[in-house]
Amino acid sequence: MPQEMKAAILYKPGDVRIEMVPKPSPKADEVLIRVKAVGVCGSDVHYYRSGRIGSFVVRKPIILGHECAGEVVAVGRGVKSLKKGDRVAVEPGVPCRRCLPCRTGRYNLCRDVVFLATPPVDGAYCEYITSPEDFTFKIPPNMTFEEGAMIEPLSVGVHACNRGQVKSGDAVVVLGAGPIGLVTLQAARAYGATRVIAADVDSKRLALAKKLGATDVVNAKKKDAVKEVLRLTGGLGVDIAFETAGAVPTTQQTIGVVRTGGVIVWVGLAATDIFPIDVMTAICKEVDIRGIFRYANTYPRAIALVAQKRVNVKALITRRFPLAQVPAALAFAAEQGRKAIKIMITV
Amino acid sequence: MPQEMKAAILYKPGDVRIEMVPKPSPKADEVLIRVKAVGVCGSDVHYYRSGRIGSFVVRKPIILGHECAGEVVAVGRGVKSLKKGDRVAVEPGVPCRRCLPCRTGRYNLCRDVVFLATPPVDGAYCEYITSPEDFTFKIPPNMTFEEGAMIEPLSVGVHACNRGQVKSGDAVVVLGAGPIGLVTLQAARAYGATRVIAADVDSKRLALAKKLGATDVVNAKKKDAVKEVLRLTGGLGVDIAFETAGAVPTTQQTIGVVRTGGVIVWVGLAATDIFPIDVMTAICKEVDIRGIFRYANTYPRAIALVAQKRVNVKALITRRFPLAQVPAALAFAAEQGRKAIKIMITV
Amino acid sequence: MPQEMKAAILYKPGDVRIEMVPKPSPKADEVLIRVKAVGVCGSDVHYYRSGRIGSFVVRKPIILGHECAGEVVAVGRGVKSLKKGDRVAVEPGVPCRRCLPCRTGRYNLCRDVVFLATPPVDGAYCEYITSPEDFTFKIPPNMTFEEGAMIEPLSVGVHACNRGQVKSGDAVVVLGAGPIGLVTLQAARAYGATRVIAADVDSKRLALAKKLGATDVVNAKKKDAVKEVLRLTGGLGVDIAFETAGAVPTTQQTIGVVRTGGVIVWVGLAATDIFPIDVMTAICKEVDIRGIFRYANTYPRAIALVAQKRVNVKALITRRFPLAQVPAALAFAAEQGRKAIKIMITV
Amino acid sequence: MPQEMKAAILYKPGDVRIEMVPKPSPKADEVLIRVKAVGVCGSDVHYYRSGRIGSFVVRKPIILGHECAGEVVAVGRGVKSLKKGDRVAVEPGVPCRRCLPCRTGRYNLCRDVVFLATPPVDGAYCEYITSPEDFTFKIPPNMTFEEGAMIEPLSVGVHACNRGQVKSGDAVVVLGAGPIGLVTLQAARAYGATRVIAADVDSKRLALAKKLGATDVVNAKKKDAVKEVLRLTGGLGVDIAFETAGAVPTTQQTIGVVRTGGVIVWVGLAATDIFPIDVMTAICKEVDIRGIFRYANTYPRAIALVAQKRVNVKALITRRFPLAQVPAALAFAAEQGRKAIKIMITV
Repeated sequence: MPQEMKAAILYKPGDVRIEMVPKPSPKADEVLIRVKAVGVCGSDVHYYRSGRIGSFVVRKPIILGHECAGEVVAVGRGVKSLKKGDRVAVEPGVPCRRCLPCRTGRYNLCRDVVFLATPPVDGAYCEYITSPEDFTFKIPPNMTFEEGAMIEPLSVGVHACNRGQVKSGDAVVVLGAGPIGLVTLQAARAYGATRVIAADVDSKRLALAKKLGATDVVNAKKKDAVKEVLRLTGGLGVDIAFETAGAVPTTQQTIGVVRTGGVIVWVGLAATDIFPIDVMTAICKEVDIRGIFRYANTYPRAIALVAQKRVNVKALITRRFPLAQVPAALAFAAEQGRKAIKIMITV
Repeated sequence: MPQEMKAAILYKPGDVRIEMVPKPSPKADEVLIRVKAVGVCGSDVHYYRSGRIGSFVVRKPIILGHECAGEVVAVGRGVKSLKKGDRVAVEPGVPCRRCLPCRTGRYNLCRDVVFLATPPVDGAYCEYITSPEDFTFKIPPNMTFEEGAMIEPLSVGVHACNRGQVKSGDAVVVLGAGPIGLVTLQAARAYGATRVIAADVDSKRLALAKKLGATDVVNAKKKDAVKEVLRLTGGLGVDIAFETAGAVPTTQQTIGVVRTGGVIVWVGLAATDIFPIDVMTAICKEVDIRGIFRYANTYPRAIALVAQKRVNVKALITRRFPLAQVPAALAFAAEQGRKAIKIMITV
Repeated sequence: MPQEMKAAILYKPGDVRIEMVPKPSPKADEVLIRVKAVGVCGSDVHYYRSGRIGSFVVRKPIILGHECAGEVVAVGRGVKSLKKGDRVAVEPGVPCRRCLPCRTGRYNLCRDVVFLATPPVDGAYCEYITSPEDFTFKIPPNMTFEEGAMIEPLSVGVHACNRGQVKSGDAVVVLGAGPIGLVTLQAARAYGATRVIAADVDSKRLALAKKLGATDVVNAKKKDAVKEVLRLTGGLGVDIAFETAGAVPTTQQTIGVVRTGGVIVWVGLAATDIFPIDVMTAICKEVDIRGIFRYANTYPRAIALVAQKRVNVKALITRRFPLAQVPAALAFAAEQGRKAIKIMITV
Repeated sequence: MPQEMKAAILYKPGDVRIEMVPKPSPKADEVLIRVKAVGVCGSDVHYYRSGRIGSFVVRKPIILGHECAGEVVAVGRGVKSLKKGDRVAVEPGVPCRRCLPCRTGRYNLCRDVVFLATPPVDGAYCEYITSPEDFTFKIPPNMTFEEGAMIEPLSVGVHACNRGQVKSGDAVVVLGAGPIGLVTLQAARAYGATRVIAADVDSKRLALAKKLGATDVVNAKKKDAVKEVLRLTGGLGVDIAFETAGAVPTTQQTIGVVRTGGVIVWVGLAATDIFPIDVMTAICKEVDIRGIFRYANTYPRAIALVAQKRVNVKALITRRFPLAQVPAALAFAAEQGRKAIKIMITV
């Protein structure tokens, strides 16, 4: 096998170049994967545009991309459960396995996690990556690599539903019908929610939400989302309210749309850190507000949901670019991102 | 309105007569319901056959039947949420609302519950019954009265899934594919279980299980159910094992089919009270075993599941008898019961 | 028995008069109680001072006081578990027992709750009150009536610990060392918290917190409470952070003092409804924020904690007034309230 | 440092010899510990007596002992949080950190756990052992090494209370007042149980239970334990029933002593695997039965409980032997074990 591979490297904001770099080799507990499909995430676009997300700063050239699937082409000597030829989805964050969060099942909160495409760790806009055996999951023959790559964003929706403890018969609202909103609403349906309200300001996204199982949609440009959700629920509010738009007003609305004793899950991060929240109402309604950060223990379940057609992730993929055109893909995403739901890089 | 109504009265084992009895009147917080459909439950057959279930003994003539739906024909003066003409499903057990179980959300464990067709309380094999407003639930226009009556057995399946905490992506087994098994497997699917194995000794019931969403079926007459479940789950066992057959061997098998750290839900009552259990394995696998007794807070959720076609209860109804033929219906159920899944009395 | 009784009646803000009013009679399911001790709660002072709390407005003369204990002097004909002479603590909020919150164990969220001293319902600054049997709890011989009255505020602390799911070995912080802070910290200790940090701006209250079991105290006037809590917990933050001061800054601090993956319980209501919260950090730490509104199912447990000397509520009582001096008591509380922890009315 | 150390080696049942063996060296992520105190566990005695426990068979000479504490004398190059001179308690089971149980916080269920003194892994009846940094916990200056060694059995009690979800105000029974029973009852108290009933057939053990915080004791030789527990709880039964005796009758009694809707925790393993259980009652009471296998994430909490004097483990140590007398200690334990509660080896 050749010792080099093609990769898309971000040098500085707006500057991505396709270059040859050394091909990685798997350690004893790792597999080498020929990447086949990688999604473009909002965080990739963020790094592309501004070179940083919060305290994570691109200080040296980096390969972006962390939503990926591919084929195992080599395995380390300690690997038992995977072999050459296996088709796999890659969980991109590998924790230390030793700290308190890791020991207690919340490894997404590990401070020492190594996460693909989070500076200074390289990601998957390239031909080959390595991944530890236990963070690499077989996908069944009836799943495409693109669907495999979509397991990553779907994991956010699954984790949101786990944190929200969605149960059969629940009424939920998903504020925001972007990629994360659309996987969250589908996950909520798969968890048995019988009322799934989607709210967004974009009528095309709402049409897709409807197609993917929303029982009701609310165009927040035309109607007051809080009033409309209350109207739809007979004045009670929903059992669980998900914020996936990453916006200040929708985050504030979660307090208003949830029923007394209900659960709020804040999934999206707004551009502003600190902003006004109706604490009084949150307390008097005795709500639970739960943040979510990435996900843990979601891959096998998310794969099963897609394999069984309980969740449709294909419908979210609206544009495709080959690896050689990652610069164009990121430029497109940065400039006209809202025109697409999910952009996929095919490698 | 006439002051009398037709009712099927059990005088003693095997002796059921159709007679005219006084029509009940609703109290201030009750509604009067014209019964339209009532299911025949195993417990009805048990009283018919032997005049008792455990410590509940038929000491005076009793009207059986507790799985029922109908139409509201009058309301007590304190009733606000229901009106004449409403189509409703009736939750048949009304608790004291004051004891510790009632106060803590487990009202099914109330010692003073008044339960239809449990001696000495009359049931619903008759034209009219009364029911408290808060235990009477509207059913939507797209649901039939028969489906409304089936909310009662479905509630057992929903409660079993609540107790088992079925989550999306879970693998479950349902041991027994009778009426309760078939609602439990459908409820588990509605809760997101992606692997649903049904086991029974009757191939017709297994065919129905398959039609209703079982991903795998095991004919326990032909194969060792424990081995087969382990084989189907790669040697691990299922996340949650439901026993719904009410048999000694299937109850014992739950310990073997569940994965380490998994959950067992004992739904069915076997004819024998006390029998050998593999306690050592239960402890070493650190399993959770959970009994279930009736259900609580399931009606609105179960109605939503049927209304949304997530659960098919119609398919379970295999025989129908009019009220005047309740004696024949019970005789049929007692003698050839396994030929039917659910017998429905239409009133 | 005489048909009239003495009561302290609030006519308008600042105007409380001692008058004779009709003595209540118990209904079938109620007991008549000779009130012996009633605490002065912040809400009583609020009504006294401004005639309203949020949407609850004093529109006609009202008897205040809802933290009370006394002796049963008569029982309704349906009462079985209580008899004349029983010493009891009174749970002051009686819910409808029928709505969804009531059915699911969260009766504190019942919209139709009847709560003592919440307009227009009269309270307990009087000689006799009635109470339903199931909201009246016997206290053991080794408990005083004053301790019985303190079961009400202690219930808030117990409910806060239930909602916070305090477990043995947890590290907690209680922001605010007023009456509710002091019962919450003691409840947390009784739930097994091994690190209990109390923060307040008043050194006398902190001294009492220390005496009552705080392992560490932080004077927030002298030190940055967030930094100090982080220092005390090795930079990690606490497992559970309780806000009991009902102030904007302390509510904001909860996000900073809690560990990643930790739990925040907002107990106190600030004077401002809507104010800035660090949502970004809440999400990235994946915290749980839980409001609490009154309490449910706490009385028997709270009584057991006091009876067993696990919680010391006596130490909180710093002033006493007889019933005839309720006007003086409320005036004192309104003007110099922070000088007292808990004022008790002895009847 | 010398390259050899003294160790007590079990050659075959009844044959333990003190010999010199190679001293272990710590790997990069391990520390080397000078053992100071090691408890004698029932499992050690079992191997001593019969050379096996279930499928674990002593096939080659083995060093027993897994309840240990000591002093760090060297650290691997990757170790950061521990240094020479640290006094530590050792968690004896090191899991794979990669499988599903490990990833989900239940690492005690890892199939590949390496557990001290479980064939073929050597234990701690010797002068030095190595332990991974993350399974080695500092003990505070006010704790003795013997108390440090007792963290292991206490962990079983803490895990039992975690699984039983003991809450403040709970009533519990502990069936069996041996070492595990006595730590479980103390842990339950530390979790806030206000009623702690201990049952045993040995009056000396019951006297110790009383001294350590049992509110009631039941001599099961003289009284029917089930009837007595019901009598003590007003006919209701306890919230949580722990079986720690590892006996068939006490395991059976758990169904009878627990209240409707209560929780049973089976801690002890009886000599018989499969025996009759009253399944009917378990179901009709809707109980939860939970097995426990070892423990997970208990060490820091258990250390805090001992350091704060919430749990007294010293009182359980009734005999001491030096390392050179391990053969005598095991012989004593095997022959007259019930005379002691916990035997400690001082090294």
